[in-house]
Amino acid sequence: MSRPNDARSVTSKVLAILDAFRPAEPELTLSQIAARAKLSKPTAHRRVAELVDWGALERDESGVFRIGVRLWEVASLAPRVLPLRELALPCLEDLLRLTNGNSQLAVRSGDEALFIERLRGRNTLRAHTAAANRLPLTAPAVGRALLAFSPSQLQEEVLSRPIRRFTEETVTDPDEMRRKLAEVREVGYAVSPRQIELGATSVGAPIFDRTGMVKAAIGVVFENDKIDPEHLASIVLTFARALSRVLGADISR
Amino acid sequence: MSRPNDARSVTSKVLAILDAFRPAEPELTLSQIAARAKLSKPTAHRRVAELVDWGALERDESGVFRIGVRLWEVASLAPRVLPLRELALPCLEDLLRLTNGNSQLAVRSGDEALFIERLRGRNTLRAHTAAANRLPLTAPAVGRALLAFSPSQLQEEVLSRPIRRFTEETVTDPDEMRRKLAEVREVGYAVSPRQIELGATSVGAPIFDRTGMVKAAIGVVFENDKIDPEHLASIVLTFARALSRVLGADISR
Repeated sequence: MSRPNDARSVTSKVLAILDAFRPAEPELTLSQIAARAKLSKPTAHRRVAELVDWGALERDESGVFRIGVRLWEVASLAPRVLPLRELALPCLEDLLRLTNGNSQLAVRSGDEALFIERLRGRNTLRAHTAAANRLPLTAPAVGRALLAFSPSQLQEEVLSRPIRRFTEETVTDPDEMRRKLAEVREVGYAVSPRQIELGATSVGAPIFDRTGMVKAAIGVVFENDKIDPEHLASIVLTFARALSRVLGADISR
Repeated sequence: MSRPNDARSVTSKVLAILDAFRPAEPELTLSQIAARAKLSKPTAHRRVAELVDWGALERDESGVFRIGVRLWEVASLAPRVLPLRELALPCLEDLLRLTNGNSQLAVRSGDEALFIERLRGRNTLRAHTAAANRLPLTAPAVGRALLAFSPSQLQEEVLSRPIRRFTEETVTDPDEMRRKLAEVREVGYAVSPRQIELGATSVGAPIFDRTGMVKAAIGVVFENDKIDPEHLASIVLTFARALSRVLGADISR
């Protein structure tokens, strides 16, 4: 585990320590941190102590480390997260009431959809999308809404790689996905039936900022056949357009 | 601005860069970052580039830097934040419906209350407590609920320093505050009338974990005279006890 010729910068070692924490394993011992960040134990010990001092990590009595609340506080300044969430929260609540489904707000992070909020209705849908979880851009409706209005270079990058399958109906053929994305651009919203769970459909629509770039997507997942997806999509689209207008987007077209 | 003998570790320089971002100024130029983090411009440039590569910072077309969504994603693993928020969200929504006030979830961070969630009702109260904002432990009811059940050493530290005044009725005398905290321990909840805004009262109650430590506080702010604070406090206390029980606390006493 000792790496005497570790050429990485100190910054990247520090970031590798943060990277060691995952949703499935939010608590790690020093040895686990060292192993995952590929650091010698003395180096890990030194860096971790500095991170604890600042509050980026917290250590409990048993010696286990977790991400600290101070890091969350600084990270909450990300303009793509809390301000957007604050703005969209009433819409997410209304979608919940209308559908009893799970309403969602997502942004693009690299080639994935990152869920920055998810409200759960009283339903039996599996929770694929807790806040701060990710899904491919290709399967959920909010992902397609983000992808369809992203630069075409990104779309082609995503389509050049294998498309992740969740159910027997998940679209994994790049040409078919290209047609789906063209439809999303045409109607302004995405409908994803049975793409992640056979019993569920999601609808989503893009939120634009004043530069005309897609900034986020709002949507809802609900049990198939309970609601007309096209009718619901027009409601989601209305919310998305209202949010875009608040962000200064020109949506007169 | 150049500090040739800067003895700080690289880790602390990196963290100083993150610290440069504040709620009132979430967007900074490289020069502003260098000035606030007390780094030479070349050093700031190098560290900022590494942080951008990883996604801890994002840079827009005009060259302005912001906290990146990737940092928020990692920081969301803080066990004191999202899991607690997910658990408390239905209670926060119920408090909103009951009161039309603003419901709040706070944890202690150092000697302050850090608000990890805040839902706004339809009211004219000023918003002192957006999510990820801080207030002193002494003024808001959730702060007093946190302070009253914290180790007495921390209480004495807080009371040994000047207590921040918000209104002419804010309690700033340490002995009076000591009595208020004893009352909170006696009844199990805090009522803070006119302490932050003359027109508003807040109530709050502590949430305990299985080790018996106070982990968070839940509460609500509402316009004076609209609601009987003691009646509402018993509801808040019931929610807090239910949440404590979910966290494994022994609240049979």
